[in-house]
Amino acid sequence: MSDKTDSAPVPSKDAAGVLSIDAMGGDLGPEAVVAGLARAVKSIPAIRFIVHGDKPVLDALIAKRRGLSDHCTVRHAADVVAMTDKPSQVLRTGKDTSMWSAVEAVKSGEATVCVSCGNTGALMAVSMIRLRKLPGVNRPAIAILWPSRNPSGFNVMLDVGADIRADADDLVQYALMGTSYARNGLGLDRPRVGLLNVGTEENKGRTELKEAHDKIETVAADNGFDFVGFVEGGDIPGDRVDVIVTDGFTGNVALKTGEGTARFVRDMLGEAFRATPLSKIAALLAMNSLKRLSKRIDPRRVNGGVFLGLNGTVVKSHGSADEMGVAAAVQLAWSLSESGFSDRLRARVAAATASLEKAE
Amino acid sequence: MSDKTDSAPVPSKDAAGVLSIDAMGGDLGPEAVVAGLARAVKSIPAIRFIVHGDKPVLDALIAKRRGLSDHCTVRHAADVVAMTDKPSQVLRTGKDTSMWSAVEAVKSGEATVCVSCGNTGALMAVSMIRLRKLPGVNRPAIAILWPSRNPSGFNVMLDVGADIRADADDLVQYALMGTSYARNGLGLDRPRVGLLNVGTEENKGRTELKEAHDKIETVAADNGFDFVGFVEGGDIPGDRVDVIVTDGFTGNVALKTGEGTARFVRDMLGEAFRATPLSKIAALLAMNSLKRLSKRIDPRRVNGGVFLGLNGTVVKSHGSADEMGVAAAVQLAWSLSESGFSDRLRARVAAATASLEKAE
Repeated sequence: MSDKTDSAPVPSKDAAGVLSIDAMGGDLGPEAVVAGLARAVKSIPAIRFIVHGDKPVLDALIAKRRGLSDHCTVRHAADVVAMTDKPSQVLRTGKDTSMWSAVEAVKSGEATVCVSCGNTGALMAVSMIRLRKLPGVNRPAIAILWPSRNPSGFNVMLDVGADIRADADDLVQYALMGTSYARNGLGLDRPRVGLLNVGTEENKGRTELKEAHDKIETVAADNGFDFVGFVEGGDIPGDRVDVIVTDGFTGNVALKTGEGTARFVRDMLGEAFRATPLSKIAALLAMNSLKRLSKRIDPRRVNGGVFLGLNGTVVKSHGSADEMGVAAAVQLAWSLSESGFSDRLRARVAAATASLEKAE
Repeated sequence: MSDKTDSAPVPSKDAAGVLSIDAMGGDLGPEAVVAGLARAVKSIPAIRFIVHGDKPVLDALIAKRRGLSDHCTVRHAADVVAMTDKPSQVLRTGKDTSMWSAVEAVKSGEATVCVSCGNTGALMAVSMIRLRKLPGVNRPAIAILWPSRNPSGFNVMLDVGADIRADADDLVQYALMGTSYARNGLGLDRPRVGLLNVGTEENKGRTELKEAHDKIETVAADNGFDFVGFVEGGDIPGDRVDVIVTDGFTGNVALKTGEGTARFVRDMLGEAFRATPLSKIAALLAMNSLKRLSKRIDPRRVNGGVFLGLNGTVVKSHGSADEMGVAAAVQLAWSLSESGFSDRLRARVAAATASLEKAE
């Protein structure tokens, strides 16, 4: 990947309220994406889309949804990035894909945020090469919202897989970017930030974590967040912090372990309710309450990893996202677009970089 | 910690069926430990204990449980390792603690397996210094049983926190030790072993993981296990593998994330059942089924991390273990003692070390 940083795309006035949508490359195809757009339009009448992909197919799908065509401009892209394509290969030969085209519309300033259900590695590679890294950012990160005991119902965790490595300075950047995201995505004035580590005192020995701990402590006050220090895996769904900072390897394992565990408990619960005639009746009686629970921990509701640290915002939806999942990712993209998130993040990183340099 | 390895303790014939119990240092004190011993005796009449701690206190607690004194020899230890004690400090000044005394009884061959609810770091340090590492093992590991979709109901995961680092050779040793544990602890003839990694192809780049992948593949056939290659966090509660191999940092984060998520979902479920009058009735009707579910995912049932790679077996119970938790840890220790686990593990590591050296 390139190490170059570059100036921001300058969104034209027309870009306000315009999202760039990669309609191909998800597991459920363009049908699910267009259905998700139609669902999002119902709650956000002002939203507009540039939709990238196979034009005849997309035109037909959009025409079927009443009123949707008023919100959409379709831009033809002949190719699709497959889930199995290697990022390096997409960089070489992917210029005609819907993914490339979708990122390009943010680069050119026609849209504010890009949304794609495609291959994560390829999307990160294309985003890096076209949007470039923010000045001061070495490694971009993917941030997600995680169901938690907090009043907002969520924590922010990053990085969950943009890069398998992170040194102390990267972790400091993640703390700053996570703070911006919690402020704009969760509406928190003064997020509490924690650095993920393991429990025993003796083990708090990874050099980069100790160093990151001290550096994050130094920048916290000037950047409007509270640093609570080291946190553990058990705090990820907890209420001690709003932002959990870790490297992409650990974050990805934690994310998938948490998702797998929640799925496991849910399946066991289903089995428990099917076990006896009495429990089947109980399931009927409790149906509404259980639906609320299910909604609370439904990964589709929090669908969308956000790429942070680039000149422009990209939302990565789950590859298997259905209509509801796509709509959630689009709504997230919209709220980030409306809050001027890209500009705020850029300003924060620039200010912090300056103050860190002064401190050294 | 010492790098020396040493010869095995030679258990006398009298050691068969004898477990060494550190009765102090758990959060709930010696009452909970003695209650757990009494519970274990009911299901295993042949079991005997050497119980270490404050003799007058322990004698009184044991005397209260009918018949328990026939199973117990109490050995006085004046001091207790506190949860906040640093391992290095315990090594210097901890010779009179119940923990030290409990490990010593395995070292001297009086007992086969040691069980403690005390401070993990200190217990590992004392075990390392007194029992020494097995020849061929560089880093000992802590293995746990994790509730999963497998027919046995569990997977084995290691390391969950003995060390924050692991190089390729350590990971190979973990695969071998995990195989032994799955064979003796879960009764599996031919365990399936996976190496924990992150999802995207491009990210499969950590050098030590690639190297470990190839080395584990090489030793699998000769050591009676199937290597399924890389697995992800979602496979930890799944049914693709029986043994999950990872470094102690990642394993500890995954363990605590999984525990935290399960607790979170369980609490949300409780809230759902208290939400409405109908759902309260449902909770009553489903009570038996929900109890079964709760038991299935109850961490107390799988209480006990096992230290692997030492001359002798040590079971670390949760610090907060109650009567049921202590009994579970004791039962695990008993089954490892009965299967001659220490000797089998030693033989396996020795054979594999020889075959790896031959291959190089």
